[in-house]
Formats: sequence, C-alpha cells, structure tokens
Amino acid sequence: MSDYKQESLELHRQHQGKIGTAISVPINDKHDLSLAYTPGVAAVCLAIAADKSEARNLSIKGRTIAVISDGSAVLGLGNIGPEAALPVMEGKCALFKSFAGVDAFPICLDTQDPEEIIKTIKYLAPVFGGINLEDIAAPRCFEIERRLQAELDIPVMHDDQHGTATVVLAALINALKLRESSKDEVKVVVSGAGAAGNAIVRLLLGYGVKHVSVCDRQGLLYAGRPDLSGEKFELASITNLSKQQGSLVDALVGADVFIGVSSAGLVTTEMVKNMAERPIIFALANPNPEIMPDEAEAAGAYVVASGRSDFKNQINNVLIFPGVFRGALDNRVRLITDEMLVKAAEALAGLVDDLSVDKILPDAFDKRVANTVANAIK
Amino acid sequence: MSDYKQESLELHRQHQGKIGTAISVPINDKHDLSLAYTPGVAAVCLAIAADKSEARNLSIKGRTIAVISDGSAVLGLGNIGPEAALPVMEGKCALFKSFAGVDAFPICLDTQDPEEIIKTIKYLAPVFGGINLEDIAAPRCFEIERRLQAELDIPVMHDDQHGTATVVLAALINALKLRESSKDEVKVVVSGAGAAGNAIVRLLLGYGVKHVSVCDRQGLLYAGRPDLSGEKFELASITNLSKQQGSLVDALVGADVFIGVSSAGLVTTEMVKNMAERPIIFALANPNPEIMPDEAEAAGAYVVASGRSDFKNQINNVLIFPGVFRGALDNRVRLITDEMLVKAAEALAGLVDDLSVDKILPDAFDKRVANTVANAIK
Repeated sequence: MSDYKQESLELHRQHQGKIGTAISVPINDKHDLSLAYTPGVAAVCLAIAADKSEARNLSIKGRTIAVISDGSAVLGLGNIGPEAALPVMEGKCALFKSFAGVDAFPICLDTQDPEEIIKTIKYLAPVFGGINLEDIAAPRCFEIERRLQAELDIPVMHDDQHGTATVVLAALINALKLRESSKDEVKVVVSGAGAAGNAIVRLLLGYGVKHVSVCDRQGLLYAGRPDLSGEKFELASITNLSKQQGSLVDALVGADVFIGVSSAGLVTTEMVKNMAERPIIFALANPNPEIMPDEAEAAGAYVVASGRSDFKNQINNVLIFPGVFRGALDNRVRLITDEMLVKAAEALAGLVDDLSVDKILPDAFDKRVANTVANAIK
Repeated sequence: MSDYKQESLELHRQHQGKIGTAISVPINDKHDLSLAYTPGVAAVCLAIAADKSEARNLSIKGRTIAVISDGSAVLGLGNIGPEAALPVMEGKCALFKSFAGVDAFPICLDTQDPEEIIKTIKYLAPVFGGINLEDIAAPRCFEIERRLQAELDIPVMHDDQHGTATVVLAALINALKLRESSKDEVKVVVSGAGAAGNAIVRLLLGYGVKHVSVCDRQGLLYAGRPDLSGEKFELASITNLSKQQGSLVDALVGADVFIGVSSAGLVTTEMVKNMAERPIIFALANPNPEIMPDEAEAAGAYVVASGRSDFKNQINNVLIFPGVFRGALDNRVRLITDEMLVKAAEALAGLVDDLSVDKILPDAFDKRVANTVANAIK
C-alpha cells in the first residue's frame, strides 16, 4: 500500500494528471479550419438551433459524460474539497474511456450547497449526454440525484449509490447460487444507511429479496424508531418487516448475508459464528473492512467479498459504471432505472464462467463486461 | 461557402463532434488501476488537500482551459443558445490543442444571467487553469470578465474582446510600418463599440496610439453625449479628445485608419476617398465586411484586412488565443494584462518575414506563432 502511494504521486506528477483532450477531426490546413471552425461550423450551429436534439448527433453531447463531485465524501477520505477530489474524478474519466470508450470530463464544484449544485449541473447540461454524480455526501446526494433526474432530459446516476448496489447484487446473485439459497428465503442484514446502503437495499428489494434489515450506528432501523427522518425513515418502512429492535449484534443472529458499507471492525468472529450456517459476508468498508476476509472465513463464512483490490472478490464499481453509461448513451436512455440495473447485475453475474467461492465476479479487465452491461441499459 | 456548409455538417455528423478524451497514463492491468485510481490515488488527493497549489502539478488543472459561452452572441448568428453554440466552443478547443497543445474543454451554460454565469464559473474553477470566455454578448461580457478576473486566482480572458484586439494591433503595427506612419500621429476611427471595439480601443491606447475615435450606430462617441452609459461612457472619456460630433461619414474625413467591428456595408467608396491618402482599412464585420476589400482598394485603400479566410490579411484570433493561454499556463500568470497583449502583438507582427500590403500577418499554420505569443505572456 505504501508503495502505491509514492508510485501514484510520481505518476500523477509526471503526466500532470491522467486525461487530456484529443482532436477527432483533421486540422492541418485552411480547408480543415473552415470545416471545423468558421465559416463551416455556422451551418452546424444553425442545424442545432433549429432542432436541439441534433446536438447529440453533431457534437460531443452524444458521447460525453460529466463526472461531478463537490468533494464532500471522497473515497474514505471524507470532505477534502473540490481540488483534492479532482484526481479521483479524473481517474474515473480515464476508466470510462478505457473500459467503455466513453468520453468523460471531471467537474469538481466549489460549492456544497445542494440547491447550488443542482442549479449548476442544470446549467452545464447542454454539453453532456449524461451525469455521473460521485463522492457527494449523504443525505444531500439523494435530493440532488432525485431532483436532477426529474428536471433534466439526460440520465443522472450517483455511482456511489447505484454502481455499488449493482455490483453487490451481481456478487450476491452468484454467492446465493453457490450456497444454493433462494432470494425469497435468505435473511440479509445491511450495515450502513448512507448512500451505498440505501441503494443496495432498494436494488435487493427490486430484485426480489424478501427479508432485508438495515443497521445504522444506533442499531436496527424499524418503522416507528423515533429518531428517523428522510431516507432512513423511508428505509425503515420498506425493510425489517418484523420490526425487530436491537443492535447489529442482535440483527446478525441467524442472518444468511451480511453486507457492510459502514466502518472498519464492526463485525467480530463471534458475530459471524452467530449467523446462519455458511454465511455470506460482504465487508465493503474501505480501506479497512468491517471484518478482515481471513477472519470471517476462519469463523465459518462461506463466501467473502471486500472493496479491496488486494483481496479476492473485490466489489469494484468499474464493473458497472462504464457499461451503464455506454448503454445509456447508445440507447438514448433518459432515466436509468432499478429494473435496468437488476438486468445489468444479472448479466454481469452470468459472465463468471469458473464460478467458485473465490471468484463470484468477472475480472475487471474482462473485455466482455462493458458491452454486456451496456446491453441491459435500454 | 455553401460547399463548406454541407461538408462541415457531414464532418460533424460522422465524428459526432470534434474532440474527445484521451488517457495519458496506462490502464492495462490491476497495478495500473491501483495507481491511477484506488487505492493509490488517495495519496494524490491528500497531497492536494494539504496544499491546493499542488493541483496544478498533479491533475489536469495545470494544463486545462475552459472555453465558456452562454450562447448569446455566437459568430455572426446572434443569440442561438447553449446547445447550438457547442460546435463553436468544441472547435475552439480543437484549435487550442492543435495550435498550442493546450487541453481545453467546452462549457455552454444554460443561463444568460450575468450573476449566475459568474457564480457558475467560480464553482467550476477548481478544475481549470484558465477561463476563455467566448461569444458572450455585450455589455454583460464586460462585467462578467471584470468580476471573474477580480475574484478568481486563474487567468480569465474574453477572446472576442482581447484576442481580436491583439491580432488587430499586430496587423496595425505592420500596416503602419508599411505606410511609414507613426502611432503618435495617425488618426484611427473604430466603428463598433461592443466587445471587440472596446478592447481594440483600449489596446491601441495602451500601445500608444494617440488619436482614436469610436462610432456606434448613433455616430461619434464624445464626452458629454447624453445617451452614453457604462462602457460607452468610459470609451467617450478616453477617446475623441477634440470632442468631435457627427456621423461615421464625418469621422472618416481625413482619418488614416478605419477599423470596423460593426455591420456589413457601413463604409462606401466615397467615405474611403475622403480619408487621408493611402488609408488603412480593416473591415472586420463577418461574414459581410463594412466594405468589400476590392472596393476599398479601388477607392485608394493601401492596406486592407478582413475577418474572412477567403480574402488576404485575415484578422484571425487563432493567431493569438492558443499562445496566450499556453503562456499563461506555462508561466502561471494570474492576470493577462494589456501590457502582455501589446508584447504579444509586437512579437506576432515581428514574425512576418515577407511583409507586404498583401501579407501583414503570419500564416495561421506557421509553427512559430504559438510559442512566440506564449513567450510574451509572463
């Protein structure tokens, strides 16, 4: 890990970042100039002025995504601000291009006011074919995404929510297959009711998982818990149908699946032992998981996944976001729905040829991934 | 011209615009991914969080310009809106890359409210090393540029003002040289008191031209003219020191130089004949100039320039803006001053080896141009 740090700093310094502009038409003489710029470009402007939808055909709008953050919840580093968030957004743009041929540009906003963020993104929308929201803190991320989806005519997706949820679902589909468990019967406990936790719960319910409970720092969410509001209030109304009260320790007793998007070390070997037999453990807190994979396995876990690239079964969003926006652009999708994401998760899960407890997801560099996901987004 | 239209439309449709994203670091395996993205990128984020100025060294901020328009005054097409303006901004970004290796990204804003434009650009500033304002209508362009220059720590330049003015000055320097006229003595009349006219006047005065008058549609600006306010009021106070009143016809009597950034056909052969001997005529209205070059010459004009690529002596901003921002980025210039632009104009004028009335500016594809201009911006 410490080697990566120095090496990554040097790489960024040497290249002054990771992406740049490429010209896709020749500009070698006056004739080229007359076509790409004045006077020829006037005809292109007028064609779009006459019919705005032509912007998708005649400009970068049809193939370009904005990766937008306010720097408020960057990786596990917290609220480090827009300048410091830029290397992550730029990296994401590089992955968009590399994994799915999607042109993407990073936008880091020097405001963390939800209304200002919404307004600014609406002002920027003419240039883009889609908006990937990134590393925006909960709960403002929910309102921002919901409002933009309602008010813009291009797809908007907060990847920390839905990208993560879709990879989790793909991994869970394969884990349940290995364990020969049914989505109707398994008892799933999600630890963390922030951006990722919220989306995971909703996508699992959309997929058809019947028994889902959620814990935050205060323990189980249940309808009627007096301190709940906003998203957590809604979550409590659609999960934990038996209205169980208690801590995460209580919640895990007899549970089949643990999905952690919370904090390091929250789960002990004792808690794993109290779960159902051969439990599934997705400990996704980064960089330090809720329980280390080897400890979980020693305590009886059957399938273990984490968010880290140095362990097996990494829940890696790069399996989803490039393909999702590739599909959204190609198919001119206005709204990316949970139904599409369930199909994307199923398709992604289906790509694992040599399924085993050590391999429940395709390799990130598997060339089939982006197209397979893209085909589900329509 | 009509051929350009069809050919340009086809080019734009075929390539879906003119620029794209390029990746400047390898992303071929898990190790690459760990450096460009998580976990390695966290070290880069923290380095910038500790010292914001590191963003210029470690991200695209140090080499990327935003080309920003509100679509309110696009080419000669007027207020065609942000979507229709995109092909021009994209083209400009292609020229930035092609002529000076500057990475540039187009931003077309879906608002024409000056305060909203200012605020939005300030929100976007973390990502960029400079702001090229483009095709924003007067008078709001003045306030927007002035405020952003005062409130941002990166250079901001409205190219329709200062790019145009700098090329005009370079052309005038060479025209005066050919005519063996002194900047102290020539009488210059500028037709048009909008974005370009304003900046041309100020740059000519900064260069040391003594006698400059400006006409708008109502005739000569003079201190005390009752209808003047804002920029025109200021222009009247620094030009036309003899407080001459009258029309453009009156203003041109005995004038040495006409610079038109106004409307087609405003100047007749008769008016040219009433100017001083061997007058200099820059008729820059686009696409149809204040007087056609051949008519001006027939009436006795000595040096003639226009804004069109199909006539000699084109006043073409591409001679200036790529180099100006190249220099501003390389030399970490916070404010692009008129003093720098005068030096850039002088350097640009000095590049014409075979100076003649038919060639007062370097060729746009002369490889020396961008670096020569860049060296003046420091």
